[in-house]
Amino acid sequence: MTLAGSAKLAARQTTVRRALETLKLEALVVTAPSNIRYLTNHGGSAGVLVVTGDAMHLLIDFRYREAVRMLQASPSACPSLRPWDVSGSYDEALLDCLGQLGVSTAGFESPHLTVARHDWLVRTASARKLPLVFRSTGGIVETARMVKDDAEIDALREAARRLTPVAQAAFSMVRPGVSERAVAARIENAMRDAGYERTAFDTIVASGPNGALPHHRAGDRKFETGDLVVLDFGGVLDGYCSDLTRTVVVAPPSAEAQRVFAAVREAQQAAIEAVRPGIATTDVDRAARRVLETHGLGEAFGHGTGHGLGLDVHEEPRVTRPRADVAPVPLEPGMVFTIEPGAYLPGWGGVRIEDDVLVTEHGCDVLTSVSYALIPD
Amino acid sequence: MTLAGSAKLAARQTTVRRALETLKLEALVVTAPSNIRYLTNHGGSAGVLVVTGDAMHLLIDFRYREAVRMLQASPSACPSLRPWDVSGSYDEALLDCLGQLGVSTAGFESPHLTVARHDWLVRTASARKLPLVFRSTGGIVETARMVKDDAEIDALREAARRLTPVAQAAFSMVRPGVSERAVAARIENAMRDAGYERTAFDTIVASGPNGALPHHRAGDRKFETGDLVVLDFGGVLDGYCSDLTRTVVVAPPSAEAQRVFAAVREAQQAAIEAVRPGIATTDVDRAARRVLETHGLGEAFGHGTGHGLGLDVHEEPRVTRPRADVAPVPLEPGMVFTIEPGAYLPGWGGVRIEDDVLVTEHGCDVLTSVSYALIPD
Repeated sequence: MTLAGSAKLAARQTTVRRALETLKLEALVVTAPSNIRYLTNHGGSAGVLVVTGDAMHLLIDFRYREAVRMLQASPSACPSLRPWDVSGSYDEALLDCLGQLGVSTAGFESPHLTVARHDWLVRTASARKLPLVFRSTGGIVETARMVKDDAEIDALREAARRLTPVAQAAFSMVRPGVSERAVAARIENAMRDAGYERTAFDTIVASGPNGALPHHRAGDRKFETGDLVVLDFGGVLDGYCSDLTRTVVVAPPSAEAQRVFAAVREAQQAAIEAVRPGIATTDVDRAARRVLETHGLGEAFGHGTGHGLGLDVHEEPRVTRPRADVAPVPLEPGMVFTIEPGAYLPGWGGVRIEDDVLVTEHGCDVLTSVSYALIPD
Repeated sequence: MTLAGSAKLAARQTTVRRALETLKLEALVVTAPSNIRYLTNHGGSAGVLVVTGDAMHLLIDFRYREAVRMLQASPSACPSLRPWDVSGSYDEALLDCLGQLGVSTAGFESPHLTVARHDWLVRTASARKLPLVFRSTGGIVETARMVKDDAEIDALREAARRLTPVAQAAFSMVRPGVSERAVAARIENAMRDAGYERTAFDTIVASGPNGALPHHRAGDRKFETGDLVVLDFGGVLDGYCSDLTRTVVVAPPSAEAQRVFAAVREAQQAAIEAVRPGIATTDVDRAARRVLETHGLGEAFGHGTGHGLGLDVHEEPRVTRPRADVAPVPLEPGMVFTIEPGAYLPGWGGVRIEDDVLVTEHGCDVLTSVSYALIPD
């Protein structure tokens, strides 16, 4: 596994420490695993990180002690790391750590801490008479992660590039009588052969009417002539996610299949062409949605146009309609996200086409490189 | 996919409604996906459920509308289901729903709601002048889920049973020169062939020194003579999880490997034999831990002995040492959990042996059925 070098980690940590200064916080308690990974290279599923002005206090249990020791002996060692052993509960250990450090004002990640944990921490700190105040923060690390650095762009580019042979393997199985499940197995084998460490999400193979269920996975249904087949899959390489969707037909396609497919492809291309620095995420969504509305498919496109891609398969920025809970984000070079409009017609089927794009100085690079043909070669 | 029948769902809902009465709550807002699935059969990754005395208000977005319509036309339809369309944010829709229903006191699941969502809900309800109070609850549905009903036991039994050929396929590859990754691929293919809908967690193949990292996954390391190899995998069948670990050797084993292996196997057997109704989870842990301490391996066993198994691969009850944050649970017939002691020696390797057990009237049934031989056939 390739990890960010120590100098890169130091730069990321500096960004977060500047945010702490601005917010007048002595420490930030980081509980989201991918935020911990971004700042320390520690990739465990458990762990709590306390970022202070001079150290990265990483609380880990027994299971990760040896892995962290090996990390620190590598060129990807985390600068200023101070590991803390957790023998019981993480939150007990967290209070011990904050108490020993004498922290009086600690930020926590409100989108990544449950009410139960928060209430326990506040109640127990008070019972222990710790002079400690917890302050809600949101998106400090996520904002830093939204614009990828060079090492991340290399990883995302390679993760996207390797989907090409995987897609070809899937296309080669699209014929009558083959089951969705068999194609999903072929896709996942091809991802392993391509070197991905794991799938980024559950592989979707949705044929015929199942294509109208945007989150169908892969079942026992066998392909029939005329079926549209939605193939949605991605792999994780060096921690970074890729995500691709293609829709193909079990030839020959009906006139309606060709019409809907052409409309979605046109919408996807319009959104890709809209991407450039300064444009808002909502404008990218608008570009796709307008095309589908023109074709009478506005109602059939019920989800957002895309999502950020990085250490998480769904991260910032969200490419959606204007929504009360999602602030539009002006695009910047280095952002990476998916563009994946679709049209879903209950009882009939669906079409979705998805690529991963990198915002560049003047537009975007499409990182995935797979044929869009409705009838695969 | 086999789902619980409508009558079974009705019984589960009754249990939750009784808890609401006891707590004097008009509604429970359920946000944990596996709790929603347990009460409604809706298996989507998004959704919010509002349980009231007379209805199950299921808030779902576009992606799941068609799937819910199909569910309601099946013998596994959710009784008293009322679907609500979500077009923007789930939490906006939740406030709309609670407002329209005139709910004034709603419980929420504090272990499954983030501080950010909670604060937004409270602030926005207040801004809208809704006469609505949110009250923290924890474990209402999890407590109901801890004791499995007959349909769940059948599903868990079958999910465990099908691991036998998967383990055999893995064992057949344990010889010098084979990579961890290749064995993980074989395991995952065998799981698909066995009919599992997905893996329950990332497959672990940890050989030689990697075995000392309890959460190593599967890398490029190739097996060498004398290596201990920890194989930890599981599949999901009809929504229910299985979880198995075996440790085998690339023959011949060293005397130390035989010694550590025998100690862990003895500890695991002692824990299995301790299981019966009325015994506390901490006593089961104690039975395993005492054996390892006798063999001088107490320090090498740094994690808990097991975890509940059901719709989630890690659920209640936790089988651990006495801990401030985990209350011991007295065992009851129908509980299902893993028993998986291990010993991890940094730089050398590790051993873990894991089965899934069902608590019965007088002891337990071991649901997994795989050879314990250190040298596989």
